[in-house]
Amino acid sequence: MAKLIPNRTLKGFRDFLPTQAIARERLIDTAKAVYRSYGFAPIDTPALEYAEVLLGKGGVESDKQMFRFEDQGGRDVAMRFDLTIPFARYASLNMNEIGTPFKRYHIGSVWRGESPQRGRYREFTQCDFDTIGTRSTASDVETLLVIHDLLDRLGVENFTIRINNRQVLNGLLEQFDLSDRSAEVLRALDKLPKIGRDAVLEELSERAGVPTAAAEQILASVELEGEPESILAELESMTTASEAGQSGVATLREIFDIVTRSGISAGRVRLDPSIARGLDYYTGTIYETFLDDLPGIGSVCSGGRYDNLAQLFTNQELPGVGASLGVDRLLAAFEELSLIDGRSTPCRVLITQFDRGRLADYVGIARELRSAGIDVELYPDDKAIGKQLKYANRKGFALAILAGADELDAGIRQLKVLKTGTQIEVEAERLVDEIKERLADERSSIGSVEIE
Amino acid sequence: MAKLIPNRTLKGFRDFLPTQAIARERLIDTAKAVYRSYGFAPIDTPALEYAEVLLGKGGVESDKQMFRFEDQGGRDVAMRFDLTIPFARYASLNMNEIGTPFKRYHIGSVWRGESPQRGRYREFTQCDFDTIGTRSTASDVETLLVIHDLLDRLGVENFTIRINNRQVLNGLLEQFDLSDRSAEVLRALDKLPKIGRDAVLEELSERAGVPTAAAEQILASVELEGEPESILAELESMTTASEAGQSGVATLREIFDIVTRSGISAGRVRLDPSIARGLDYYTGTIYETFLDDLPGIGSVCSGGRYDNLAQLFTNQELPGVGASLGVDRLLAAFEELSLIDGRSTPCRVLITQFDRGRLADYVGIARELRSAGIDVELYPDDKAIGKQLKYANRKGFALAILAGADELDAGIRQLKVLKTGTQIEVEAERLVDEIKERLADERSSIGSVEIE
Repeated sequence: MAKLIPNRTLKGFRDFLPTQAIARERLIDTAKAVYRSYGFAPIDTPALEYAEVLLGKGGVESDKQMFRFEDQGGRDVAMRFDLTIPFARYASLNMNEIGTPFKRYHIGSVWRGESPQRGRYREFTQCDFDTIGTRSTASDVETLLVIHDLLDRLGVENFTIRINNRQVLNGLLEQFDLSDRSAEVLRALDKLPKIGRDAVLEELSERAGVPTAAAEQILASVELEGEPESILAELESMTTASEAGQSGVATLREIFDIVTRSGISAGRVRLDPSIARGLDYYTGTIYETFLDDLPGIGSVCSGGRYDNLAQLFTNQELPGVGASLGVDRLLAAFEELSLIDGRSTPCRVLITQFDRGRLADYVGIARELRSAGIDVELYPDDKAIGKQLKYANRKGFALAILAGADELDAGIRQLKVLKTGTQIEVEAERLVDEIKERLADERSSIGSVEIE
Repeated sequence: MAKLIPNRTLKGFRDFLPTQAIARERLIDTAKAVYRSYGFAPIDTPALEYAEVLLGKGGVESDKQMFRFEDQGGRDVAMRFDLTIPFARYASLNMNEIGTPFKRYHIGSVWRGESPQRGRYREFTQCDFDTIGTRSTASDVETLLVIHDLLDRLGVENFTIRINNRQVLNGLLEQFDLSDRSAEVLRALDKLPKIGRDAVLEELSERAGVPTAAAEQILASVELEGEPESILAELESMTTASEAGQSGVATLREIFDIVTRSGISAGRVRLDPSIARGLDYYTGTIYETFLDDLPGIGSVCSGGRYDNLAQLFTNQELPGVGASLGVDRLLAAFEELSLIDGRSTPCRVLITQFDRGRLADYVGIARELRSAGIDVELYPDDKAIGKQLKYANRKGFALAILAGADELDAGIRQLKVLKTGTQIEVEAERLVDEIKERLADERSSIGSVEIE
């Protein structure tokens, strides 16, 4: 016998079993439906790009983590590590075809050779949407609504989208003549939840060179809490001398005004002046999204407005706004919140085989159900019926159809409700309706489990 | 100004513009729906594997074409070049979790460093489905039905699934005591459409060492034409001395019997003893699928039954049957047959902005339509209305909604049918119904264009 090849996967990479893959497809299908409902169109870009396209865009760390190599033609190539840089390259290359405004979503794998940790993989899915070629607040509002509808349609009850606007802090810094310190200030503020107020104050004055009074006021602006309108009034009065600051406040005010009038529950959107997101890329509205039942996993959908998507590739200015759904993080959260059922089949109904000689009848029943819109699997062999039912239970089917030669000849089918073991006799003509009714019941009971 | 980075893509790789990506998503979504309706569950495997997992499986050519490199950890890794080898590795590794029978579909990118030609890329999508862990003809029948339903649901009217069974030829060879020549014989027969009868006869006798009488009979078996039953009767009498041959004929007969009784139009399934598919992998039923209106592009969905999926990775025998939909080939065909419309938006309705001050109203109309199940895009800026309508036409929207301050206050919307330019006034409460009626008309007229 030939020596077997080890069937291992690479460190940091993983296989998806059906249960996980079904949940992931459900999530991605929902995201696509929501993106499409707002007019975002799909695009795709290659997994491999010239290394020079990707290098230096995500910082030193990204460069080190990149899967980079020389291809058969001697080209220096690398696997994409996010979908933003490829989108910038894409937009600049295809601008004549796509035009502006341009709304796209892009769902695909990206690769980073990070040290694998719990929940961190070297291959993962990104799920981005962006509107480019406009500075309109309408697109900022829509970005928020898309995030809202996404989580809502995924059945998440309790979540909070936190928003802020980078222009407010820019305005404050401008007033203190500290605009050139924004990167250092942001870096210090980012640490607030971890190192606390005093340490941040110290870092602001010592490392960022911000005078104490200014540092105090910057911190005060970030720590504002309460109703959006009262926070906005405070921020407005703190930035009266800065056009940028006033514009940031006005944009936030318009977003809250429209969101409130759109019937979005007020608890789901919060103005949070403490969120800062990244160092230099974002320039306007920024978004982070937390699951109220599992805030510790961090933001599951983040993004913001930027001034210029593709400046490394084109001289054409491309302002835009967008966000990225954290597919793997959200799936991990759903698993932790027991929102994923253990089914490993996409079907709810299994047709068993009693009598090998009647295969044509079983295939006929399956086709009849499918043409009525019922997904159904036919067990391939006429093994002992107990074995077939065990398979049905293990996979998570709801109903099994049993019919021997006598029943087939009499136009009768036995329908077994797998959870309870109840078995009822159904006439052939009633089968579709009976199954539809039972699956409708089944669905609502799954729904109520999810809400618990 | 900093020097710009060239925004080019790698040779053999490509960006997908929205029009192409929308068509591709439609095709893949349809395939998923059909696969699921038969109980196939999704799985996924990594893009990168240990090189030893992939090497030597697809022959010398595959090895040369593989994108293979040393990763940061010094591992010899490669990008997958198909989904079959990864599935074999996956099945052997996860056998305890998945059990048998196991039905999976797998849709993903694969990479081959081939010389790019028209319609051949270095990155392309595979879309496979397989049933493993059973030798039942039920699964052979289902494989055929899945292929049928796939093309049917994609709106292809005229296609032919050609089937054959490798055991028939095996039986013939066995009778002539030529079983050890099967690879050479298959290679010669594969050339029949290209080099013709006489050249194949010559190759059979000279290269494959097949005596002339045997070669004549092998060729005769392959050239049989007519109704399935008459071909089967011939093949049956040609292989009376071989169990394998008789079993191949019996399987084909059962498949035709069930397919005929399943209401599949007879013209769509043809018994074609000349199809051979590959050298050693397939062992039973084999499938090829041709578009009658474009036979020259070759088979768009091919597959077959095999005895042992994962013998290189496990001693457990895993017989199975499956097929692979040629996504890129099919899309190229649809383009050639003008079955892809030129739309670059997933929505049919655009809301224009007349009055920047009424953004909340426009957002409100959009939300109302979306909650009624109508996908709708809101133009982000209040540019000149001509410019907004030009955008709507360029993208391929069907309807545009126009409403200025007066109309909004009066609860009136103007609905513009973009193809004709007709504009009608609609009361706010009637808007959803009016749009649904018009889109239903629109759809049926698209349908009739597709059928032409």
